Amino acid sequence: MKKLIERTPETFREKQNIDAHVHHEVIEVDLPGRRVHIEDMQNNRSRWEAFDRLLIATGSSPILPPVSGADAKGIYGLSTLESGLKVRRVVDETSPRRAVIIGGGYIGLEMAEALILRKLEVSLVERAPQVMNTLDPDMGKLVSDALMNVGVTLYREESLEGFEAKNGRVSGVVTDKRTLPADLVILGMGVKPNSNLAEQAGIPLGFKNSIKVDQRMQTDVEGVWAAGDCAQCYHLVRKQPFYIALGTVANKMGRIAGLNIGGETAEFPGVVGTAVSKICDVEVARSGLMEKEARELELDYTAQTIETSTRAGYYPDSGPITVKMLGEKGTGRLLGAQIVGKEGAAKRIDVIATALHAGMAVDEMIHLDLSYAPPYAPVWDPILIAARVLVKKL
Amino acid sequence: MKKLIERTPETFREKQNIDAHVHHEVIEVDLPGRRVHIEDMQNNRSRWEAFDRLLIATGSSPILPPVSGADAKGIYGLSTLESGLKVRRVVDETSPRRAVIIGGGYIGLEMAEALILRKLEVSLVERAPQVMNTLDPDMGKLVSDALMNVGVTLYREESLEGFEAKNGRVSGVVTDKRTLPADLVILGMGVKPNSNLAEQAGIPLGFKNSIKVDQRMQTDVEGVWAAGDCAQCYHLVRKQPFYIALGTVANKMGRIAGLNIGGETAEFPGVVGTAVSKICDVEVARSGLMEKEARELELDYTAQTIETSTRAGYYPDSGPITVKMLGEKGTGRLLGAQIVGKEGAAKRIDVIATALHAGMAVDEMIHLDLSYAPPYAPVWDPILIAARVLVKKL
Repeated sequence: MKKLIERTPETFREKQNIDAHVHHEVIEVDLPGRRVHIEDMQNNRSRWEAFDRLLIATGSSPILPPVSGADAKGIYGLSTLESGLKVRRVVDETSPRRAVIIGGGYIGLEMAEALILRKLEVSLVERAPQVMNTLDPDMGKLVSDALMNVGVTLYREESLEGFEAKNGRVSGVVTDKRTLPADLVILGMGVKPNSNLAEQAGIPLGFKNSIKVDQRMQTDVEGVWAAGDCAQCYHLVRKQPFYIALGTVANKMGRIAGLNIGGETAEFPGVVGTAVSKICDVEVARSGLMEKEARELELDYTAQTIETSTRAGYYPDSGPITVKMLGEKGTGRLLGAQIVGKEGAAKRIDVIATALHAGMAVDEMIHLDLSYAPPYAPVWDPILIAARVLVKKL
Repeated sequence: MKKLIERTPETFREKQNIDAHVHHEVIEVDLPGRRVHIEDMQNNRSRWEAFDRLLIATGSSPILPPVSGADAKGIYGLSTLESGLKVRRVVDETSPRRAVIIGGGYIGLEMAEALILRKLEVSLVERAPQVMNTLDPDMGKLVSDALMNVGVTLYREESLEGFEAKNGRVSGVVTDKRTLPADLVILGMGVKPNSNLAEQAGIPLGFKNSIKVDQRMQTDVEGVWAAGDCAQCYHLVRKQPFYIALGTVANKMGRIAGLNIGGETAEFPGVVGTAVSKICDVEVARSGLMEKEARELELDYTAQTIETSTRAGYYPDSGPITVKMLGEKGTGRLLGAQIVGKEGAAKRIDVIATALHAGMAVDEMIHLDLSYAPPYAPVWDPILIAARVLVKKL
């Protein structure tokens, strides 16, 4: 029998052959006893239940540093469907005027877009010199510019120090440089894996406190599995364990865990670090390694950046696109790329992702038979142009 | 010294260090004498000039079967910038009401779109049961439907038999089933390589009468090179010579020829048969082999087709996308894919093209770390969904 213990009903869709318990939560795992302690949140009761196989899919939680005033109402992290619905309800019902977003990553970018479209005054506080720390700063600057172009007030190199509140509701965001008035605060400082339950049970953790799993998604404990934002994965370019809290990766991990738990044998080879986002009409994408990562790994690399257009220059709605590509000197191996540009820019990262999976060299990429027609690309696709420029420096 | 002999000035852009002769044409190549016979078309003179190295880049010409009335005015092939400008001028100046397009390939599709947008009554005559013979008929049907949806009157399984004319101007297209009134006729029956000049000089031809070249773009004659629509290329999936008259391939071949002629050593590995087009808001793409080709090559293959959405289902402007993917039984090798769908559908073919270059197996593709965010894709990109369905049948 399959039993699902799920705290939030909003993220649950009815499935056949599953004994689902929403508003329930596993609060303890007893590994030697092969049983879990389940809390019934609606009836305030708890019970122990035995398991043969256990899948931990506890997800991740928004990071909030220990600052003053964080318990005020009106401060929201976004990590579940439930949390997204809550913020929308708050905007609908309380009509906040001034929103402050803390952090310029994917959540920050997407919430900035959503709140700008809802006509709020949006400020964004970013600790680093540029938003999007999954891009190199030169590419991040293009995203910073895009945020400002759509009306977001950007405060860079400023750190969150705390919150001010009136009558228990947030009224301001205190940084190391100023206090920003706020009716609504969005936390976009990243997420951390919800690995406490596993850790307390004695299940070993791995990269950045995510649950250590093998390629079959099994933890170091036989019969106990983990998948999704709570678990680590393997990075095929870094060639080491990694943590990446993205829906597409979580979904792949869940499938692999499910196949293995069901008796099949399936392995998840790993990720190459692909991610994509947008702020209004500016698209952002990355895959593989950025310069900071290549330096950390002590790789001898070169990076080149090109600017061209998303479509044939004469075609309507052709827009600028910037591609930065990294390759390893000596081997010539493709290491990664970052893309910022107008419509049609971002999905080009999938070519990079595929080439990274295949371990392609940059000089193989310059001949890729990528599609061309004036509505879709210049005769030389931006990826090919970047590869051609990069290959000369390798 | 570099000398360029070019018949049509419209396709020529001024370049440094090139002695360009527009309105000139090479009419004969004397291989033993290492010289070419050049006609000065404006002054009606000709002369012989010596060469050390010769590049033949004569392009291709629209195919027109030997039917009656083909010399009437108002019948246009599209193969050069000049020919496109001419048709636009005709539409601007003579305001034709009824256009008939012969052939439902890339040119037919793009001209249908252009003429529908110019408010003409557009008919399209296609010999086969469906348009787009570079797709399998089941995928071609989706394109036929798209043409009809934008108002094109489609006549399938009808063959061109001739043209009717009044006062020297085309007035009708005669098929084996009817006569269609026409003020303007567009030929979209494919192109043939302009290889006569080479053939007459004794330079060996290759696949489908295109000029035979090696991977450096040199013909069988030392010092004589060919590139672009007049030359053959190598198909990396078919593993045999091929002919493909597309700008992106021509451009790559030209670069390789230029590098080699200039003294460097460069090779063009070949193509995988990628092409992309659209009819208004329906995008069309293909790469690799379709079923007909797999059968011709006597490959043991399986094809699977999936339907999903271009973006997350709940995201605005998400539209349908159909992906058909072919894999080889036994080896599990990806053979090709075809895509028809709404905005964002077509460029996904570049993942297929990259995977074909890398010789990937379908079961490697199901784990590709393709980008996901709701504006760009479902959590499982359509390519991944197709691979997952196909891999079960291999």
